[in-house]
Amino acid sequence: MRNVLGNNLTVTLFGESHGEKIGAVVDGLSAGILVDEEYIKLMLSKRRPNGLTDTARVETDEFSIVSGVFNGKTTGAPLCILIDNKNVRSADYSEKLGLARPSHADYTAHVKYGGFEDYRGGGHFSGRITAPLVAVGAIITSALNQIGVKIGTHILSCAGVLDRSFSNVSSDIESLKSLEFPLLNQDVSGDVINAILSAKQKGDSVGGTTQTAIVGLPVGLGEPWFDSVESSISRAVFSIGGVKGIEFGLGFSFADKRASEVNDSLVKVDGKVVTLTNNNGGINGGITNGMPVIFNCAVKPTPSISIKQQTYNFITDKNEELQIKGRHDPAIIRRICPVLDAVSAIVVADLLVTKYGTDCLLKGF
Amino acid sequence: MRNVLGNNLTVTLFGESHGEKIGAVVDGLSAGILVDEEYIKLMLSKRRPNGLTDTARVETDEFSIVSGVFNGKTTGAPLCILIDNKNVRSADYSEKLGLARPSHADYTAHVKYGGFEDYRGGGHFSGRITAPLVAVGAIITSALNQIGVKIGTHILSCAGVLDRSFSNVSSDIESLKSLEFPLLNQDVSGDVINAILSAKQKGDSVGGTTQTAIVGLPVGLGEPWFDSVESSISRAVFSIGGVKGIEFGLGFSFADKRASEVNDSLVKVDGKVVTLTNNNGGINGGITNGMPVIFNCAVKPTPSISIKQQTYNFITDKNEELQIKGRHDPAIIRRICPVLDAVSAIVVADLLVTKYGTDCLLKGF
Amino acid sequence: MRNVLGNNLTVTLFGESHGEKIGAVVDGLSAGILVDEEYIKLMLSKRRPNGLTDTARVETDEFSIVSGVFNGKTTGAPLCILIDNKNVRSADYSEKLGLARPSHADYTAHVKYGGFEDYRGGGHFSGRITAPLVAVGAIITSALNQIGVKIGTHILSCAGVLDRSFSNVSSDIESLKSLEFPLLNQDVSGDVINAILSAKQKGDSVGGTTQTAIVGLPVGLGEPWFDSVESSISRAVFSIGGVKGIEFGLGFSFADKRASEVNDSLVKVDGKVVTLTNNNGGINGGITNGMPVIFNCAVKPTPSISIKQQTYNFITDKNEELQIKGRHDPAIIRRICPVLDAVSAIVVADLLVTKYGTDCLLKGF
Amino acid sequence: MRNVLGNNLTVTLFGESHGEKIGAVVDGLSAGILVDEEYIKLMLSKRRPNGLTDTARVETDEFSIVSGVFNGKTTGAPLCILIDNKNVRSADYSEKLGLARPSHADYTAHVKYGGFEDYRGGGHFSGRITAPLVAVGAIITSALNQIGVKIGTHILSCAGVLDRSFSNVSSDIESLKSLEFPLLNQDVSGDVINAILSAKQKGDSVGGTTQTAIVGLPVGLGEPWFDSVESSISRAVFSIGGVKGIEFGLGFSFADKRASEVNDSLVKVDGKVVTLTNNNGGINGGITNGMPVIFNCAVKPTPSISIKQQTYNFITDKNEELQIKGRHDPAIIRRICPVLDAVSAIVVADLLVTKYGTDCLLKGF
Repeated sequence: MRNVLGNNLTVTLFGESHGEKIGAVVDGLSAGILVDEEYIKLMLSKRRPNGLTDTARVETDEFSIVSGVFNGKTTGAPLCILIDNKNVRSADYSEKLGLARPSHADYTAHVKYGGFEDYRGGGHFSGRITAPLVAVGAIITSALNQIGVKIGTHILSCAGVLDRSFSNVSSDIESLKSLEFPLLNQDVSGDVINAILSAKQKGDSVGGTTQTAIVGLPVGLGEPWFDSVESSISRAVFSIGGVKGIEFGLGFSFADKRASEVNDSLVKVDGKVVTLTNNNGGINGGITNGMPVIFNCAVKPTPSISIKQQTYNFITDKNEELQIKGRHDPAIIRRICPVLDAVSAIVVADLLVTKYGTDCLLKGF
Repeated sequence: MRNVLGNNLTVTLFGESHGEKIGAVVDGLSAGILVDEEYIKLMLSKRRPNGLTDTARVETDEFSIVSGVFNGKTTGAPLCILIDNKNVRSADYSEKLGLARPSHADYTAHVKYGGFEDYRGGGHFSGRITAPLVAVGAIITSALNQIGVKIGTHILSCAGVLDRSFSNVSSDIESLKSLEFPLLNQDVSGDVINAILSAKQKGDSVGGTTQTAIVGLPVGLGEPWFDSVESSISRAVFSIGGVKGIEFGLGFSFADKRASEVNDSLVKVDGKVVTLTNNNGGINGGITNGMPVIFNCAVKPTPSISIKQQTYNFITDKNEELQIKGRHDPAIIRRICPVLDAVSAIVVADLLVTKYGTDCLLKGF
Repeated sequence: MRNVLGNNLTVTLFGESHGEKIGAVVDGLSAGILVDEEYIKLMLSKRRPNGLTDTARVETDEFSIVSGVFNGKTTGAPLCILIDNKNVRSADYSEKLGLARPSHADYTAHVKYGGFEDYRGGGHFSGRITAPLVAVGAIITSALNQIGVKIGTHILSCAGVLDRSFSNVSSDIESLKSLEFPLLNQDVSGDVINAILSAKQKGDSVGGTTQTAIVGLPVGLGEPWFDSVESSISRAVFSIGGVKGIEFGLGFSFADKRASEVNDSLVKVDGKVVTLTNNNGGINGGITNGMPVIFNCAVKPTPSISIKQQTYNFITDKNEELQIKGRHDPAIIRRICPVLDAVSAIVVADLLVTKYGTDCLLKGF
Repeated sequence: MRNVLGNNLTVTLFGESHGEKIGAVVDGLSAGILVDEEYIKLMLSKRRPNGLTDTARVETDEFSIVSGVFNGKTTGAPLCILIDNKNVRSADYSEKLGLARPSHADYTAHVKYGGFEDYRGGGHFSGRITAPLVAVGAIITSALNQIGVKIGTHILSCAGVLDRSFSNVSSDIESLKSLEFPLLNQDVSGDVINAILSAKQKGDSVGGTTQTAIVGLPVGLGEPWFDSVESSISRAVFSIGGVKGIEFGLGFSFADKRASEVNDSLVKVDGKVVTLTNNNGGINGGITNGMPVIFNCAVKPTPSISIKQQTYNFITDKNEELQIKGRHDPAIIRRICPVLDAVSAIVVADLLVTKYGTDCLLKGF
């Protein structure tokens, strides 16, 4: 199912960077969920370029929900949200037509779709399409918050500048809500901004890593094999352009450890079974264990840079040079955080609905 | 779909560590594929414990294919392969019943299945269930080889000992076939074995990383969003117990880089479009670009160790100490390699069948 | 997957009778298919009420395709089509709120969605939602026609008046294109119209049967079990409100026959294998056999009638009388024909793409 | 998903008529369901040929459950059931190889699978494969019975002899359990048997119709569009070889009726909302309304007859005559009843699990 995320709660994406509208259809939402348009706007604003460390293309992200909501609440029927594309400068793309931008999908899309692809701004591959994902994520996150599930993502590193990891996860998630730059250690925000601006000045871009936490999940979500929590989250996360790695809990740091150093002992404290450490990131055997689900993602530097590059022109069939104009992000690490929150919310809500049935996003579990 | 991998070519897993039989049903295989039982045996032998660096539980993995094959070739109907469990010592588990092994699925399974789970040896969560995955992978790999696709996995690191990365990918894959310890640099095999034995001696275990390569794929496999090649592979890989991280191409090493350092320039050479570097691991925008697909996985140290551990007993409802007897692997890094090959083969075959239709595993693309 | 039809070529529906917009997302379409907006308009006009034998609510069905089409051709990315709702008179419904219309979904929707459903005009259950199905069907039908597949539906009976069955199927399908009342025997059209008007006059409605034919399919589509051609078509057809039965080939007339009377003998004539009769409706063992696929549907009389009825009011919790005003169809048998064509086209295209791969709607099979 | 029935509770079928074993994998079953092997045997015996009115090939249907059951109860992991094929006479088929049996899948399978199909006894298309469906259905039916859902199927007509319809549905279902010939009016059983034997004597076969009822379902199962209850049941039912039609409630008899004659008035009686009539067969808008779900199926006469027939030989590429020997059913109408019960149980259980969550087959709704 090409553009669909989820098994019982599903999100279908559509739209292109320079198309008329982009949007999403959400199906399987419990009926009766309050749809707070202000909260959707807030979440979209977190994803929107800030003009300084991000692309100069700023969309107002005006949206309308054309189905599935009645009297301000979800009806249980599919919800369609539409977002307008307005600030479009397609000429930037048509003049470069045929010049495959390195590390972008231009060449793969061209071959895959036989030359019929909408090449403007990356078409359906564009990060622009994450806007409806964020809008949908906002609706679902509101519902999850009501039943005790909270999600937050921060920049774990950018261009070599490090943030601290989650420690007191719930309050850390809370603290992220009001921040423009989602860093747990705000002391490093200047360094991060400077690193991005320094790359921007040279027409270059930087990568980074993120860390996401989900708290409040019951024990027992996910499945032993192909629908493990790690499988479900990673499938969603790798749909986001630029993500090239994911690790749960200690992740790659497990490789050099012995089990005696990293096994998470279980203990019952105050009537609740917890683990003394959370090196497994809240997941054992693919199933949630009640501890916070924690994962980190690797984000590559935005491939669109204005530095001259070597490439192949699939129209002239020649090797040529490319200098990208357009409007691009010197870093997407800040803007990707609300997208990670959104896909996490969708995946978790789907796992809940699968285990507890259709109504659980309204009634809890 | 809980225990099913794939969209058009699907593998359904069943079985428990100490059950009568384990197995898999494969559906969507092209008709006419030669099923070479010797090759299945060979692949199973690569996954089987060697008695030294692995668990002492050695199964002979006798299998039978009870459907879907006629006159030695696939019929196009679902193929069911069954493998016997013989070398079972369930008493090791029943006496520890209730003591949740740390970092294992005992506790999560207990809550999820309400106490009805088959707890012996991890039940359906057991690594034992990867045997039918490997058998299925062998059948599919044979077919893929015939149409020019090759897959190989090696130990990239174990307990801090490093192997080299893939360089000449095709010949590296070839060289791995005959090795007992799949290391590209065989000079480090002694160090790896010593590191494992040293942990084993203390009743401990070690982790590691793997690297997998897939060559010969056409340009254009995968989808822009939730069925990206990264999404599809990661979903499969995270179903394997012990895997806690995955990265494609440079992966987490992208985080500190600028795009100008790591973008993969395209160039047409000798009539073929290639990239000068392959930092993206053969995937752009979620779609194969014709270069080798390369990914690394992080494997945590086997949680079953004989060192005393703190844990919770969900039958007595008390915090207790646990000392695991049983027979366990001080490292699964060697045995996980053929499993990674197998799930890679399944995912790639599914992508091919989805794009080129039912017959392409026989007739090519 | 609640509102999704298809496996590899999928259609996701959304919208409510009195919502702002209704629409559909189509995914898995081959890239490069010409999208002829005039043909979509033509097909929508066949479904639109004619004012005489149909409801007085006439929508202009203005549509826009907001994604998936570039330079007049499909791009391979998801295509979203939106249709405006304009001619809405919700007051007709809100005053009757709580009075469950007999044989409608009012009561079942109320219980299912806990009172949060959009009850106006049947909400998401409304026949109005078949408009985007028809629009999507038109796009796919254009493509199918190019590769030799043709589809047509006629009224087989209405209120006891009988049309003849398909005989020369290809030319029969052709002849249906220009007809306002899709009857193969136009001599009975007066009788059909009179029967409908006679019921209308009394505030009543009538049912009927339809017959659909699909020609030009290759041998070998469909699967032995749950994705048999009959399974796939019936699943789609029973999503259309009012359909309560389906039969393939002789269908229920098989019941009183002996095999010697109805078996379809195979014979090779002029280099082509055909059956001498087509009692199985072009399907053997769930698989197309190259003969025309033929099926009949039973359509119940539209439940909305202005005659006084007994019902239950789920707001007052009392048994009450109901007299429906609103604007309703005294018969939907005419308007359902293009909907049956549309879902047939979607199902067949999905079967083709599944067997022959992504490109086959453009390139043929 | 070729051989898979269901969305959350799934059944995967495998096996061939003359293969070593046939079987099914069930996934998504609630943990803790009692698996009563005696009840499975009983249900299998209802499907087994009786030697008189059925085929002379009688299999003992010895089965083993090799996974998913522990201490006599389901574990929540996939359950695999295997049934041996023993009474196999493949020579009957190999000598006729190439001669496509009319109205069978021989020709369509041959083209679809390129000649690699297992042609013996219809291979994977064989009615033999319904044995594991019945076994699985028995397990699920036991669970459904515990939570108040009951299912029964009777022969509604055979070779023109008519049974009465369901009237007091619950007690009618009860009465069917002990009958060898599932007829509500046992007075006609002699006529049915005679009609079958009369056809058998001439080497011919007869068709019929069945009627299935499901009681005890809650209001609100199913979905408005493609997962309507009618869609879900019909998809399952048309996977059974020989079924060529299905109708819900009045079905095709709706066609000549006016709404005023057939609308089902709702009324609250004794604290429960019911309909005064049940012409819609318990389904409104695709959703259960709490009344018994009732549907009829058309079953064609078994195509295997010993009367000489005209056909095409796809090996010699010539039109030839065929006289089938082998062992065949002069009627499958009796043996299809438990298969219809089984697929109904699977569909209904899947709808329940989808709405109420994983545990509902154990804990109720």
